[in-house]
Amino acid sequence: MTAAGHARSTPATGTNMPEIDGDRLWADIVSTARFGGTDKGGVTRLTLTEEDRQVRDWFVAECRSLGCMIEVDRIGNIFATYPGEDPSLSPIAVGSHLDTQPQGGRFDGILGVLAGLELIRTLKETATVLRHNLTVVNWTNEEGSRFSPAMMGSGVFAGASRLEAIDAVLDQDGTSVQTALETIGYRGETPVGQVGFAAYVELHIEQGPLLEAAATQIGIVTGVQGVRWFDVAITGTEAHAGSTPMAQRNDALVAASQIVLAVRDIAHRHLPGVGTTGFVAVGPNSRNVVPGAVQLQIDMRHPSEEGLDLMQAALEQIVGAIDAKIALTHIWSKQPVVFDPAIVDAVRASAEALGYSTTEVVSGAGHDAAHIAGICPTAMIFVPSKDGLSHNEAEYSSPEECARGAGVLLQTVLQIDLK
Amino acid sequence: MTAAGHARSTPATGTNMPEIDGDRLWADIVSTARFGGTDKGGVTRLTLTEEDRQVRDWFVAECRSLGCMIEVDRIGNIFATYPGEDPSLSPIAVGSHLDTQPQGGRFDGILGVLAGLELIRTLKETATVLRHNLTVVNWTNEEGSRFSPAMMGSGVFAGASRLEAIDAVLDQDGTSVQTALETIGYRGETPVGQVGFAAYVELHIEQGPLLEAAATQIGIVTGVQGVRWFDVAITGTEAHAGSTPMAQRNDALVAASQIVLAVRDIAHRHLPGVGTTGFVAVGPNSRNVVPGAVQLQIDMRHPSEEGLDLMQAALEQIVGAIDAKIALTHIWSKQPVVFDPAIVDAVRASAEALGYSTTEVVSGAGHDAAHIAGICPTAMIFVPSKDGLSHNEAEYSSPEECARGAGVLLQTVLQIDLK
Repeated sequence: MTAAGHARSTPATGTNMPEIDGDRLWADIVSTARFGGTDKGGVTRLTLTEEDRQVRDWFVAECRSLGCMIEVDRIGNIFATYPGEDPSLSPIAVGSHLDTQPQGGRFDGILGVLAGLELIRTLKETATVLRHNLTVVNWTNEEGSRFSPAMMGSGVFAGASRLEAIDAVLDQDGTSVQTALETIGYRGETPVGQVGFAAYVELHIEQGPLLEAAATQIGIVTGVQGVRWFDVAITGTEAHAGSTPMAQRNDALVAASQIVLAVRDIAHRHLPGVGTTGFVAVGPNSRNVVPGAVQLQIDMRHPSEEGLDLMQAALEQIVGAIDAKIALTHIWSKQPVVFDPAIVDAVRASAEALGYSTTEVVSGAGHDAAHIAGICPTAMIFVPSKDGLSHNEAEYSSPEECARGAGVLLQTVLQIDLK
Repeated sequence: MTAAGHARSTPATGTNMPEIDGDRLWADIVSTARFGGTDKGGVTRLTLTEEDRQVRDWFVAECRSLGCMIEVDRIGNIFATYPGEDPSLSPIAVGSHLDTQPQGGRFDGILGVLAGLELIRTLKETATVLRHNLTVVNWTNEEGSRFSPAMMGSGVFAGASRLEAIDAVLDQDGTSVQTALETIGYRGETPVGQVGFAAYVELHIEQGPLLEAAATQIGIVTGVQGVRWFDVAITGTEAHAGSTPMAQRNDALVAASQIVLAVRDIAHRHLPGVGTTGFVAVGPNSRNVVPGAVQLQIDMRHPSEEGLDLMQAALEQIVGAIDAKIALTHIWSKQPVVFDPAIVDAVRASAEALGYSTTEVVSGAGHDAAHIAGICPTAMIFVPSKDGLSHNEAEYSSPEECARGAGVLLQTVLQIDLK
């Protein structure tokens, strides 16, 4: 066990399993928020910027000081590997991302990386030697706010994107990903995807309100929702709001409003699916002109492909039944991800062994783990987000919540290591 | 009667009443479209511009050549008066406006002025002497697209606005109404409102689809709809479109869509009222963010104040019943106008005497006549607008339709003159 005097996560079991140090983890969360810290207590640390370089350098130095081997691949993913007994085994990997949204929070992403660091500290401090190497990963550009797409590093790693194409992606200032990597010194030598993992477990804040609403301590993440995006173009007839009788109108906004409500209703009929119309553009958008044109952008999500099929079919049926000229276009999809049942079971067993209340959730947001699930057994652990807030300077998870998540992460790694 | 060889409106009655010359009227419509004419056959003749000066100068010269006395008041309204027998009587007035919208049409406004000119030509040619003077009026800035408010000249004339306030109104380039009047030489000497009328009759295109749909030749305009404008601000909760379950959403756009449909439904329950949501602004307006804020702008119209009261009450009730934080603000009103029954009867009798099919309509658009109705007996005559189009280069009424309208205007003036 570790030195006395530190706050500990308090397992219900009486075994001699190593325990993470919640105070130490919290101190890291607080101190790393200085890299890109904002006046309002949030963080603006866009990928591959000077702020990102600072936090990466800090992370690499900390890991090196603990005896980790550092590898950086061509897309800038950082792999910090703490040695286990059997170097012939593929490492168990944990991690997440160090980048944030503009005016983002102190927890989204970095919690999973700092928890990995805390695992290594705990293993070293308790002289615990795993069979597998333990690799803590920082994936490049999870957020996608400077360079698109999001989850860029894990996407190239898992083969969802080609490095050559991603290297050429430009930010708004015309800087390419490759140039940005070279500028901050994280254009590594390791070919992307060369490292293989025995398993990957990612701790992350929930970024939603479910755990808090259920007063649950740990979210057992069983997968990631699939997504389908639709564009809608409605062509009505622009007309004088005073002199055009109701019976002779062809009001594009009335049709659009029917679609907005249909999207909501379809989601309610296909729970746990969600449906959102987030974007509306009205032409000419003048109080006393009957709208002649409306564009909508729709986002539908569901844990299963069948659910998405049903939601799309319902949308197509309702749009077809509306008496207006409507073009509905399915512009983009992401298939649902179902995490590995054995790793999900290990997370559940670990949380239960520590005496924490749990809820199974399907992530509504995308995560690096969704890419990695395609190449190795993967699962995720969620901790509550206060008021469900994320991508927001007010983002908050308490020291206890973070410590519980890291504790579950450690126990999960220990369980996987035994197999 | 007039010289042979001209096309004539063809009254069904066999009396010896003077008749307007439809070909001559049409030739004026075609030729005046050169003042601000566009490549697509429309007109851009914003008020108090060089193009407006050109058409005004042409109109004044034509009226002078017919023996009219010209007066221009301080707001630039032009009064061309053709003498009758009894100068002690207040003149009968007809007219409309010579200005247009940007990329407007060849008929909106100018038809009523040119028809007045055609009346004077007909009276002169047939040596018809009325008891009353006949005044043809061009009202300044009916359209309101360069200077706000619309119906500016008639508004000052009728006492709805103060000249001093209107003089100071600026266009987008910072030019005041007063400066614009002086620049084109139409800052007249006559105090505004000094001229009194025995009656005012305005011929105008319908700018709506009712007459065409009813295959009716003449619209007997019994009044002008009242208008109420409402602003709506809906405050929801901005949230992640993936991770926020449907049951925990507070989607401002869903509430807004319910209001859009309610505005439509309320109008249908209070016909001939109309209701329009013409403007929508969504925040943050991003596909994958549940909308946290929506602003709507609503326009409701009805021929009666009671109808407007019922529509507003229904809107307030529905907004109050929607489970969201909604601020509904009544920002502006215009009371309904009911035209003078005797003048309306004179229009009806004239149209029937000429054998034209008629429909009673309440104008959905505002007109100078709505102001003038407050100070003297007033009515309007509508002729059909092809496809209901107006404020549009494709605006069209046929030569026959224009001639019928001018014919009814002449007979109406003759009837009023007899009383």
